[in-house]
Amino acid sequence: MSIRERAASADIAQKELWSLGEQERVKAIKNIALNLQEKKGLIIEANKKDIEKAHEEGLSEALIDRLTLNDKRIEDMAESVMSVASSPKVVGEIISEYKRDDGLLIQKERIPLGVIAMIFESRPNVVVDSSVLALKSGNAICLKGGKEALESNKILTQIVKESIQDIVDPNVIQLLDSKEDVAEIISLKESIDLVIPRGGEDLIQYIYENAKVPVIAHFKGLCHIYVHKDADLKKAHDICINAKVQRPGVCNAMETLLVHRDIAESFLSKLLPDLDEESVEIRGCPQTCQIFKKSMSANLSDYFTEYLDKILSIKVVHSLEEAISHINEHGTQHTESIVAQDPEAIKIFQKKIDASCLMANASTRFNDGGELGLGAELGISTTKLHAYGPMGAREITTTRFIVNGDGHIRK
Amino acid sequence: MSIRERAASADIAQKELWSLGEQERVKAIKNIALNLQEKKGLIIEANKKDIEKAHEEGLSEALIDRLTLNDKRIEDMAESVMSVASSPKVVGEIISEYKRDDGLLIQKERIPLGVIAMIFESRPNVVVDSSVLALKSGNAICLKGGKEALESNKILTQIVKESIQDIVDPNVIQLLDSKEDVAEIISLKESIDLVIPRGGEDLIQYIYENAKVPVIAHFKGLCHIYVHKDADLKKAHDICINAKVQRPGVCNAMETLLVHRDIAESFLSKLLPDLDEESVEIRGCPQTCQIFKKSMSANLSDYFTEYLDKILSIKVVHSLEEAISHINEHGTQHTESIVAQDPEAIKIFQKKIDASCLMANASTRFNDGGELGLGAELGISTTKLHAYGPMGAREITTTRFIVNGDGHIRK
Repeated sequence: MSIRERAASADIAQKELWSLGEQERVKAIKNIALNLQEKKGLIIEANKKDIEKAHEEGLSEALIDRLTLNDKRIEDMAESVMSVASSPKVVGEIISEYKRDDGLLIQKERIPLGVIAMIFESRPNVVVDSSVLALKSGNAICLKGGKEALESNKILTQIVKESIQDIVDPNVIQLLDSKEDVAEIISLKESIDLVIPRGGEDLIQYIYENAKVPVIAHFKGLCHIYVHKDADLKKAHDICINAKVQRPGVCNAMETLLVHRDIAESFLSKLLPDLDEESVEIRGCPQTCQIFKKSMSANLSDYFTEYLDKILSIKVVHSLEEAISHINEHGTQHTESIVAQDPEAIKIFQKKIDASCLMANASTRFNDGGELGLGAELGISTTKLHAYGPMGAREITTTRFIVNGDGHIRK
Repeated sequence: MSIRERAASADIAQKELWSLGEQERVKAIKNIALNLQEKKGLIIEANKKDIEKAHEEGLSEALIDRLTLNDKRIEDMAESVMSVASSPKVVGEIISEYKRDDGLLIQKERIPLGVIAMIFESRPNVVVDSSVLALKSGNAICLKGGKEALESNKILTQIVKESIQDIVDPNVIQLLDSKEDVAEIISLKESIDLVIPRGGEDLIQYIYENAKVPVIAHFKGLCHIYVHKDADLKKAHDICINAKVQRPGVCNAMETLLVHRDIAESFLSKLLPDLDEESVEIRGCPQTCQIFKKSMSANLSDYFTEYLDKILSIKVVHSLEEAISHINEHGTQHTESIVAQDPEAIKIFQKKIDASCLMANASTRFNDGGELGLGAELGISTTKLHAYGPMGAREITTTRFIVNGDGHIRK
């Protein structure tokens, strides 16, 4: 079947999915969680093939980490599936209701967008997260993963389809082979309602500039943490280690650390050896290099680089304002965090920075649909239209007006 | 100043507008209402120049109607300004709040988009409606009207700017001369966050296909009314007259009437002479022509035509299902209305038709931001992303996450 035909069959299946009751959609989603746990062995086996191939092809450690599925990650996937299942109803939700004095009743109803195309690289959990969010929101989804995760994506899609086939036409979920053309997907404006690209910068830029279909892009995550002069340094230390080390290959990891000069010496002289211990390479401003001799000297382009690896840029700043300007110049509207005690400083930071997620006294790693209460996510939008920040089921819906009268005419 | 410079100055002014308190924004908006009423004479005088020119250039009666400002229309404008002023707060609204078991507080805050460009034709009230909705939502706006309304747009913009200048930098509102290039506006992706085109089909299509900036388009409004077999024929009659005749030049006027065959004879034999009396030209299917001899014969393209004039296409249909298919094939996702008593028929109609506003027993003319409780509107979006249907202040905002912790790190 051609991509066009598969999108058309997804479109037909979507109408059926939309017309189901909420309980049926939830049941389909719960089946997926059960089957993921039951078929863990099969998943790990398929994933091993992808990982072996990745080693042969010399992919980076961070990329291989993104690709890897293990017991814990499959459990996490199943858990986030259950969390989407139990999240509030989205399809058919009446989000506002207003009766005019003349009796005309105006309601706004939440409805699915239709057929969504998800174009992604590496992380195979995207197959499961996107499928369950699509099911929850009444949308069909066409998944186009990277070739490096082909075996993992295939087995996960198969499990999803098997889990739902007694409830809804499984064409509502489509896995497009990696040979199929992204160019064709993004031109199908009659059959695809939205494209969400996740992955390398070049892929996203290409899609953003060439798509005929609407796109919500997940550009890069060059996330900063700023440690203010009054910060609790113990908390700041733990937050920075967590944000850099816990999973360096993902978009919400810290890439640049900004430190107020008043506490730079005391803070960095403790933090940097600990980061070094964790094999993090430090690229610092002159003052950083002075405090920690093993630091490399950062150049200007380092501050524009999303490493997705165990590398950290550091800059000592003179003020909160300098930190804010640095972030507004180098940030990517993804996640920015301040560690401070003064509520006024926090307020200014959260007001003046242009980003989809502004944190205080918390690790940037929390900017994730699962952590922020969406159950799972389709990606993190770094553009403002339609959705800004992590996208859950609600973010792939729209609303329409339902107006009921009794012979009402306009004066 | 170049368009780029003016967009940049709007961007700076927008930051100031956003940082104001809600009361100040409301005061600025109320000043506009007062000044519109006070300067009614000046407005009508300027508008007369546009109308004279329109007559000289032989514009259609419907277009001249769209252009015309009179006492009542200026009063209506002022009234909708007051209604926007008193509508619920938009900027800074916390739309959801959720505290995790571990104490991490997650809030979603409503924020402005930034700088909006409005490209429109004819109706000068767009200047006022768009300006107040921008002020309410903390956005700057660049207005690019048609040359046919130049004098009216100039005086209205001047009144708006004078009304707000003691409260906020008036650069937040920009009127771009009609000579300036639409092509440049839609390419300024660094300084403009959203383009909203309203007007002729060709203009919108051109912008939609060429813009580098995100676009929410208001395509055409080919609105249908379907009169079901069990309809209250008196109500149906009044609704049809209202939807066709009250203001035929606007997008929510009825363009095609579908009538169930069981009541076609009794309904149309009364309605069509009354429409004829109102100088409406009838283009009907063979059965319509039989019932009312003065009908012209409709051809297939008539059912795809948005007349924006006193012309009506009519088709007798065999069933609710035929009406639904006809609308899904010919409609423009704008406004579709059923006149019926059976709640099941209404439910099916409102469920199965793909449109941003689905009505029952009410005139299509109600699909308008002012009528549906938004105070005013920037246009009616006929595409699903970001906003679908009438766009008020809320529809030109986005939301961001504000996350507050106390040393939280991710496990």
